[in-house]
Amino acid sequence: MATYAAPVRDTCFVVNELLDIGRLGDLPGFAELTPELVATLATEAGRFTAEVIAPLNAPGDRAGCTRHADGTVTTPAGFREAYAAFREAGWGALSLPTAFGGQGLPQVLGFVVEEYLCSANQAFAMYPGLTNGAINALLASASPELQRIYLPKLVPGEWTATMNLTEPHCGTDLGLIRTRAVPQADGSHAITGTKIFISAGEHDLADNIVHLVLAKTPDAPAGSKGISLFVVPKFLPDGDGNPGARNAVSCGSLEHKMGIHGNATCVMNYDGATGWLVGEENRGLAAMFVMMNAARLGVGIQGLGQAEVAYQNGAAYARERRQGRALTGAADPGEAADLLVVQPDVRRMLMEAKAFTEGMRALALWVGLQVDLAEKAADEAARTAANDIVGLLTPVIKGYGTDKGFDTAVAMQQVWGGHGYIVENGMEQFVRDARIAMIYEGANGVQAMDLVGRKLAANGGRGIQAFFAMVDGECAGVTDELASIAGRVAKANGELKAATMWFMQNALAHPDNAGAGASAYLHMTGIVALGLMWLRMAKVAQAALAAGSGETAFYEAKLITARFFAERMTPQAGALRRQIEAGADSTMALPAEAFGVG
Amino acid sequence: MATYAAPVRDTCFVVNELLDIGRLGDLPGFAELTPELVATLATEAGRFTAEVIAPLNAPGDRAGCTRHADGTVTTPAGFREAYAAFREAGWGALSLPTAFGGQGLPQVLGFVVEEYLCSANQAFAMYPGLTNGAINALLASASPELQRIYLPKLVPGEWTATMNLTEPHCGTDLGLIRTRAVPQADGSHAITGTKIFISAGEHDLADNIVHLVLAKTPDAPAGSKGISLFVVPKFLPDGDGNPGARNAVSCGSLEHKMGIHGNATCVMNYDGATGWLVGEENRGLAAMFVMMNAARLGVGIQGLGQAEVAYQNGAAYARERRQGRALTGAADPGEAADLLVVQPDVRRMLMEAKAFTEGMRALALWVGLQVDLAEKAADEAARTAANDIVGLLTPVIKGYGTDKGFDTAVAMQQVWGGHGYIVENGMEQFVRDARIAMIYEGANGVQAMDLVGRKLAANGGRGIQAFFAMVDGECAGVTDELASIAGRVAKANGELKAATMWFMQNALAHPDNAGAGASAYLHMTGIVALGLMWLRMAKVAQAALAAGSGETAFYEAKLITARFFAERMTPQAGALRRQIEAGADSTMALPAEAFGVG
Repeated sequence: MATYAAPVRDTCFVVNELLDIGRLGDLPGFAELTPELVATLATEAGRFTAEVIAPLNAPGDRAGCTRHADGTVTTPAGFREAYAAFREAGWGALSLPTAFGGQGLPQVLGFVVEEYLCSANQAFAMYPGLTNGAINALLASASPELQRIYLPKLVPGEWTATMNLTEPHCGTDLGLIRTRAVPQADGSHAITGTKIFISAGEHDLADNIVHLVLAKTPDAPAGSKGISLFVVPKFLPDGDGNPGARNAVSCGSLEHKMGIHGNATCVMNYDGATGWLVGEENRGLAAMFVMMNAARLGVGIQGLGQAEVAYQNGAAYARERRQGRALTGAADPGEAADLLVVQPDVRRMLMEAKAFTEGMRALALWVGLQVDLAEKAADEAARTAANDIVGLLTPVIKGYGTDKGFDTAVAMQQVWGGHGYIVENGMEQFVRDARIAMIYEGANGVQAMDLVGRKLAANGGRGIQAFFAMVDGECAGVTDELASIAGRVAKANGELKAATMWFMQNALAHPDNAGAGASAYLHMTGIVALGLMWLRMAKVAQAALAAGSGETAFYEAKLITARFFAERMTPQAGALRRQIEAGADSTMALPAEAFGVG
Repeated sequence: MATYAAPVRDTCFVVNELLDIGRLGDLPGFAELTPELVATLATEAGRFTAEVIAPLNAPGDRAGCTRHADGTVTTPAGFREAYAAFREAGWGALSLPTAFGGQGLPQVLGFVVEEYLCSANQAFAMYPGLTNGAINALLASASPELQRIYLPKLVPGEWTATMNLTEPHCGTDLGLIRTRAVPQADGSHAITGTKIFISAGEHDLADNIVHLVLAKTPDAPAGSKGISLFVVPKFLPDGDGNPGARNAVSCGSLEHKMGIHGNATCVMNYDGATGWLVGEENRGLAAMFVMMNAARLGVGIQGLGQAEVAYQNGAAYARERRQGRALTGAADPGEAADLLVVQPDVRRMLMEAKAFTEGMRALALWVGLQVDLAEKAADEAARTAANDIVGLLTPVIKGYGTDKGFDTAVAMQQVWGGHGYIVENGMEQFVRDARIAMIYEGANGVQAMDLVGRKLAANGGRGIQAFFAMVDGECAGVTDELASIAGRVAKANGELKAATMWFMQNALAHPDNAGAGASAYLHMTGIVALGLMWLRMAKVAQAALAAGSGETAFYEAKLITARFFAERMTPQAGALRRQIEAGADSTMALPAEAFGVG
């Protein structure tokens, strides 16, 4: 059966040594964050997620959620108690504002807890995860009055939240939504329509559920410029801010899904439900994008989380299962067979998983720190630079992180051979659960277009140019034993620059050239970003060894894994560049009818 | 809901135009195979699989198989009637010997039916698929007496068969098996042991089930040189060859699996069951390899089959779902949104799927023809050359075919967005079912080692050298509009030659260098083999258009898809070569303990 232990040492390596957040003590929320406190927080979060949340993962998958005749929904056994414990411990409010009951710690620590939670139980993690996104949206756009009513309940997790975008006929294309919001005399709106795929739409974990709903007012302009955002609580808050009268919103049914069975994916029916406008009328998409961007980073972390737990279990199996002999002669002649871990092809899969998860952890936490810096850095230039990185890399963390997270889960299932296909062993659940992250919060093709069509061009290309310069700067002048790593990362960066140039020359007049290469470009960016992280981590490890650290094995593993990433995972950038430079011609040449049955 | 229609036109293109089997009329079984007869057979097989078998796919997934208290197993509703219809129509016996009730047609036609069956319902297809493998093993190794008893029942599908290799502690490493075979006075053996993951081990489709079982005789040498093969029927045949007394073999339990729920995956208990030796004592692995090789080609075809049905449904959705606008401006200004198929990233996924499935179909059927030629070609050189191709490409068809088949199913699920994650739409079942094909009949890492460690070196490299020459010959002298396709295929072939040379120079002394690059090499070989097929198909299409064929759209689509494959899918070969040439150092450098929780 699958198990989980939080990678606390590696988290501390990233937070304390790579990001060195101790140097940021002047910023709000960073003051008390000594390496020791970071280690304590990670240890405690790791213990909680491993001991309380992870054991519910497989049973939750088997049991799923249950909708009752009255429209209420019960989560799998144990979820309710675990959520209460989670809320009480305050894990969800770690990096939320103290003004509303949060602990005001940096976002980067919130990401640490999110990763652990996603590894332990992705279906469970989605309940607080969506709440977190809604809090961000309300903080950014809601009136002080709405904030006063909702945030003190949402921040401590007493209530949870959802995001309601998709309708049966539209997901990606939100301009097509049909849910109506009719103004009422009291300033509220009456919301009517059907939303689908609403994660955590109805459940038994919290006293109230706050739906953030996209809808159109009667005279709204057509398309995406006529969408407004509303807050629609399951129970209308009474004068004391407690759940009062039942609102006209209900769960019509639960979806049957490939995975994340422990999360209630609901069809939500709004039947003249009372809602309040968040932000300005017709500016709902912009307000919702705050939630979506937070959610996209969160989903990228789901990819990391599933990859990590799958990797742990793939590695454990490879270290205990005996099968065959090492190619170089028996490794354990006294045993009937050697351990799987001596097989180079098994090693290849483990090393790819290790290089991805550790690299992705560094990238996610580094970008988490940029979220903090974008808000809190002392000077404006630093805030802008941090914000550029967050904007540029959000689709990469979401798209590359979940594509590779899924691939990693599949590869780790492969290590288990036939036993990986058996439900009871847990590996196949990681694959099924990881699969959704490539789809929701904007399918990965949408992320790729966001990167290529929007983020590259933003502010005259300022973000991507800064990123190129950052990578080149990191690679420049490395002449010691890390030179070959730096050389390969610089080469991948060169491929990415060339692909960017190709887009500039070929995609402005022919946008299909951007579309046909977008997914390849997103993956190239992911490779270069992880290369940047690996080079930095190698430098930190090298310095630690030079300084005489006693943790020789840990730091040497970092150096070897950095080399593996550089040698075996950066070459892909070249192939992706050649795909991009082939252009859209052969991709787009066929008439639609050609995609019929041959 | 997912649907299926057999790609009859494309099958006929491959069999009649690309392979041109009409030219082989002198060979046994080929005489009457006019293009018209091939078309009729494909049409009828397509109709049968689409109308009778495919409708049972989703219900079979949901219902699964049921084991009763007495150890009997019931297949999902409808399977029994469908199997009876399949048997009566003779689809399973198409390319089996007439001497035992088969129709004696070429293997290439058997592969056509197998593909359709796998697309329609992989779980169902496995029942006759395993029988087919066992027939091959018995034909190759069993005594005339055993053949006389079993083949007349197995060939028409009256009885089915299984292959029993895996035990709880060993799958890949068969030298470790513990099942015992004790000689009895009457010449039979008493078989005792436990086998797991036995597909179709127990069911209600046939009157008898014939288990081919690997076991060790009392004085057998240790390891894989001491394994013998036995035939162990569920019911002992009586004097008339009909099922008689119940043998001491039973299904202990059914496995709970990620997919292929309609196939009964059994733990089989042998409790002194009566078995008869197939072939020579201690030569069981060689005898079983005949079955395994047939099964490996069959599993590669499963990869193709799942990719094809997933592609059909992905393409259909892209052609009916409206979402967003074309990047080049509204394609259907009169509609609220354009069809998904205008989006370049959706196109990319569809084109990759189309290029893989059509290329893989050509490859599988071409190798199917080599199976025929290896047996039936008039001169020995031709038989040898054909046999070399079959040996070389069997691991490629299995490994590359199922890796890419799975990737294709995942990509086509992606086209459906959130709806692809919903059980009722059927796309996620294709992913779950396709997943097993990468694992069973030798996990794909084992296929890669078979290719690199065994097939490359076989007969002094005769097979791979002939393959290189064949590809170069096909590419040479192409100076017309196909020149860029030929150039890119030749380039990929050059990468493959370079990787081969690298292995020769670096892997003999350091076999881990072969192991660490094996999977990449298998994929490179797949790319070059599909490139060879696409270049040949492009030439056939070009000639047909030049000859004034009225099917302009069909042949032009072949030319465009060939170009897409060359431009967008061959560049991967270069990245894989660079991975191989990085060697095993960084892959193998870490101690096993480094794969613990960080």
